[in-house]
Amino acid sequence: MKVAMIQDKIVPFDELEPIYLDRGIYFGDGVYEVVRSYNGRIFALEEHLQRFTNSLAGINIEGVDIEQVRGRVQKAFEAAGISNAKIYFHITRGSETREHDWDTNLEPNFFLTVTEAPDDKEAKSKGIAVSTFPDWRWKRCDIKSLNLLPNVLARHDAAEKGCEEAIFVDEAGLITEGASSAFFAINGQTLQTAPLTANILPSITRKFVIKAANNIELEVIEKSFTVKQASDSDELFIAVTTKDIVPVVKFDGEVIGDGKPGKCTKLLIEEFRSFIA
Amino acid sequence: MKVAMIQDKIVPFDELEPIYLDRGIYFGDGVYEVVRSYNGRIFALEEHLQRFTNSLAGINIEGVDIEQVRGRVQKAFEAAGISNAKIYFHITRGSETREHDWDTNLEPNFFLTVTEAPDDKEAKSKGIAVSTFPDWRWKRCDIKSLNLLPNVLARHDAAEKGCEEAIFVDEAGLITEGASSAFFAINGQTLQTAPLTANILPSITRKFVIKAANNIELEVIEKSFTVKQASDSDELFIAVTTKDIVPVVKFDGEVIGDGKPGKCTKLLIEEFRSFIA
Repeated sequence: MKVAMIQDKIVPFDELEPIYLDRGIYFGDGVYEVVRSYNGRIFALEEHLQRFTNSLAGINIEGVDIEQVRGRVQKAFEAAGISNAKIYFHITRGSETREHDWDTNLEPNFFLTVTEAPDDKEAKSKGIAVSTFPDWRWKRCDIKSLNLLPNVLARHDAAEKGCEEAIFVDEAGLITEGASSAFFAINGQTLQTAPLTANILPSITRKFVIKAANNIELEVIEKSFTVKQASDSDELFIAVTTKDIVPVVKFDGEVIGDGKPGKCTKLLIEEFRSFIA
Repeated sequence: MKVAMIQDKIVPFDELEPIYLDRGIYFGDGVYEVVRSYNGRIFALEEHLQRFTNSLAGINIEGVDIEQVRGRVQKAFEAAGISNAKIYFHITRGSETREHDWDTNLEPNFFLTVTEAPDDKEAKSKGIAVSTFPDWRWKRCDIKSLNLLPNVLARHDAAEKGCEEAIFVDEAGLITEGASSAFFAINGQTLQTAPLTANILPSITRKFVIKAANNIELEVIEKSFTVKQASDSDELFIAVTTKDIVPVVKFDGEVIGDGKPGKCTKLLIEEFRSFIA
């Protein structure tokens, strides 16, 4: 008789709840999004749903009704009644007996949580420290998939060094992005960030940062840069959905500028505020 | 109030079963093994438990009692009473609210299934077709982790081409291994396979294949080879725990040898039998 075991308990295989056979846990065979609300309004939901659609297509999960996803996000957000909320959701390919290739008739599994968005006041006013980590990720980081073990290991390494974020460095010594953020350098009136390739997530916040930079007349260069160039920069910051722009004041132990959030970074934070008002 | 949503159903976040907060599903933050039994005896359990120990250490999952894992495997195997069984088990870092870095006090989650081992008679007697796929995997494939999306996509591509397995090719054009198998070429009296690096899983079956090759006096070369070298080979085969040695008779549409399992491959299959008797 086929059996399963959960911790110490033996369970007949055929009585397992579908969640235990979720391809998300067996293979990370799913994609996700994180959106947040500011003062009761979800920010940039269209952009996130578009990226979610692209991620689903990227791993051939078919038959998802994106209008239904939108409806679920809104329904859960309203039920939670959290003004500044973090909304996480994923879709996995479905539940079945473990086989690498999938049954094309599988029903995808949807899961979502609404929790309080993290308080970013201190990070924004004082800035954060970051540390570098080798970019061990797979070659399709443009897909926002559940295969996040390298990101987890990088973030843990950063935490052990007293840092808030890990910045990935590829084999050529170039910075790709943060473990869960986009990464930017400012020198004079120039904002620089890595270009969008298969190695980088097309960050929604990145898009709004570039818009903000255009608005305050910074020149924007989408070109990779080295660890040395980063630590020599006038200003550094990360951008992430849950906290938008967060100044970086220490990079691999090196103090950036005068160790306080930079002038242009503060202008960008202010400009970003106008998008969410 | 924090809420969760499972398909269409809203659930208070604090009432979620721990499995929904498993870091295995959020991040693939876990490692696994597959062992099989032949005629009522589990094969090479020590080797698999040793590799499992290495994988746990590789991603810093601490405090797992490997003797307890061994006991669980044996208990479930006996409960199932399946003579030729496939035993899958994984440990994830545990369940908690989603954050990349982990709480060091987490209790790991254990999950295991015992099912019938696949019938490999036809594959062994006729051989299988394989096709190549770019090796998109992360840079620590020596860790047997739950981040298997590239393997899933590769296997699906192979299935669409009517093939049983996908063979990964790296950016230098060299073959690393199969989506869930090790890969071997035979030319004359020489057996060749890629060396064990961080890009390759230290396959247990590979180890027994090399032992079998030594026993039948094949020279063993651990050196990577190209797609062209593979398709020009006298014989090809894959090795995987659930089916041990499986001849490959077609490689990216090219017939290998006379299109039937090769002489040396058949000798290796025979020699492998002596290990499991």
